[in-house]
Amino acid sequence: MIDVCLLGTGGTMPLKNRWLSSAVFRYNGHCILTDCGEGSQIALKCAGLTFKPIDVICLTHFHADHVAGLPGMLLSMGNEGRVDPVLIIGPRGTRKVVSALMTIAPGIAFDIEIAEVENFDETFYFEGFTVTAFRVRHSVECLGYRFDIPRVGKFDIEKAKSNNVPMKIWGALQKEEEVEYENCIYTSDMVLGPTRKGLRLIFCTDTRPCEAIVHNSKGADLAVLEGMYGSEDKDERAKIAMHMTFAEAAAIAKAAGVRKLWLTHFSPSMPNPEEYIMEANSIFENTEIGFDGKFEQIHFID
Amino acid sequence: MIDVCLLGTGGTMPLKNRWLSSAVFRYNGHCILTDCGEGSQIALKCAGLTFKPIDVICLTHFHADHVAGLPGMLLSMGNEGRVDPVLIIGPRGTRKVVSALMTIAPGIAFDIEIAEVENFDETFYFEGFTVTAFRVRHSVECLGYRFDIPRVGKFDIEKAKSNNVPMKIWGALQKEEEVEYENCIYTSDMVLGPTRKGLRLIFCTDTRPCEAIVHNSKGADLAVLEGMYGSEDKDERAKIAMHMTFAEAAAIAKAAGVRKLWLTHFSPSMPNPEEYIMEANSIFENTEIGFDGKFEQIHFID
Repeated sequence: MIDVCLLGTGGTMPLKNRWLSSAVFRYNGHCILTDCGEGSQIALKCAGLTFKPIDVICLTHFHADHVAGLPGMLLSMGNEGRVDPVLIIGPRGTRKVVSALMTIAPGIAFDIEIAEVENFDETFYFEGFTVTAFRVRHSVECLGYRFDIPRVGKFDIEKAKSNNVPMKIWGALQKEEEVEYENCIYTSDMVLGPTRKGLRLIFCTDTRPCEAIVHNSKGADLAVLEGMYGSEDKDERAKIAMHMTFAEAAAIAKAAGVRKLWLTHFSPSMPNPEEYIMEANSIFENTEIGFDGKFEQIHFID
Repeated sequence: MIDVCLLGTGGTMPLKNRWLSSAVFRYNGHCILTDCGEGSQIALKCAGLTFKPIDVICLTHFHADHVAGLPGMLLSMGNEGRVDPVLIIGPRGTRKVVSALMTIAPGIAFDIEIAEVENFDETFYFEGFTVTAFRVRHSVECLGYRFDIPRVGKFDIEKAKSNNVPMKIWGALQKEEEVEYENCIYTSDMVLGPTRKGLRLIFCTDTRPCEAIVHNSKGADLAVLEGMYGSEDKDERAKIAMHMTFAEAAAIAKAAGVRKLWLTHFSPSMPNPEEYIMEANSIFENTEIGFDGKFEQIHFID
């Protein structure tokens, strides 16, 4: 199970009730923040979440509407008592941008580690989940993010018995630990059934449609994709501004066979994105319009 | 008449309904922004104000809770069509900090002029008003700001007649223009009575009490002063953190003989500053607790 909360769903400029790009994914005591637009720390508080568990911050790119909240977020994490390092993942240049922004946030008590994604995609491994950054198509170098939570197979009592695994170490093996017991090595495949489908989530903004998004979204349980423009007549505008329409995002969701699509990063020229939901629904039915504070627990399927 | 609006009244960390340091002063078509903490552009929208008329941005110092909203504010000013230059006044180092923050806000279409205050005080002259920056006492170099709107004397018909000023040029002289008419030079002192008291406003945070604040606040119509801590038992904490208690701010207001005191920049440890109003009121009666969106028109006295 993973919690997802959209903190800010506005693009470029905020509206009164629609702030700037940020979302948070919470899994097993870890928080992953994607983007950190201005106001993200306030939105996080409003959502009833806390700063301290943020272990990873994934930046799509360096436009202010995606990153201006970073100094305040890091300061608040420190004020809440964080001492463990935080990892910031971002495009090439992240080190320079973070260093510039930290000019106004001196004295952070924890280490800030930075990973600049040099290649077209790169996967980072954490306890129980992975984060894959992949290059998308915007006016500047920009990354999309895929979060994967693998799921082990069911515990198979018959298999454990047939492999003569002592009951005393079943629990450890179920947690995928390798156990030495009475001079024998036991591995989890001796007690577990076939690996089950895990959870996959995608966060992707700002970008034109591209194969990398479809590829990474294959079988995703939730894709949070930008829909800067709702109306079909904004096709040309979307191309020029290097953004997507609702229809384009929906076409990606359909091609990738995702379970659910959330649209986000709405143009300030579109105060009521719900008006255009049919532009997406007609292509991919299970589309929802994002809003600040939209929250859902995504569960394993079986 | 000048409009004053507090955009953010929180210090250090925002609360849900109390964002970070910023206030706006609006006079005669000009807007002066003092500080620009995270979320200021959203607060400005919520207050029903617009970005384009912001001509001057006064920064007290460079801690994130006072300046992190700058890139977003400047971008939104540009998106609203501003082309005229904006002047940013701040302590020594402002050029470097603004340059660092602009890393995430490329392509601003108007010029950003920067004035670093090198001395203990410095006055800047604008059409119809002046801004005086003065050094206060914080853990880093920090400025307070005084806004003065001078007011000419009343038009004196008897004086105009006794000086043989032709009625045709009365209007121009009332506006303090010098007029040449039928080979004679006429000046405004030929038609105006003695200069009247103008308006004076003070914005001051973060600081310990100091003589510069009292001196600059003399006869002010409104002093917006920080009151980081309400409770008397936070005296020592205020000294260590280089902030003021309600009582200290009230003592300044009393010593300077201001008309009204607004407290702002409240510690996140004090969610209900109203609880401590008596700490200030008992020293300076006309004290009000600031809150996000607090708005008032300050009028000339007579």
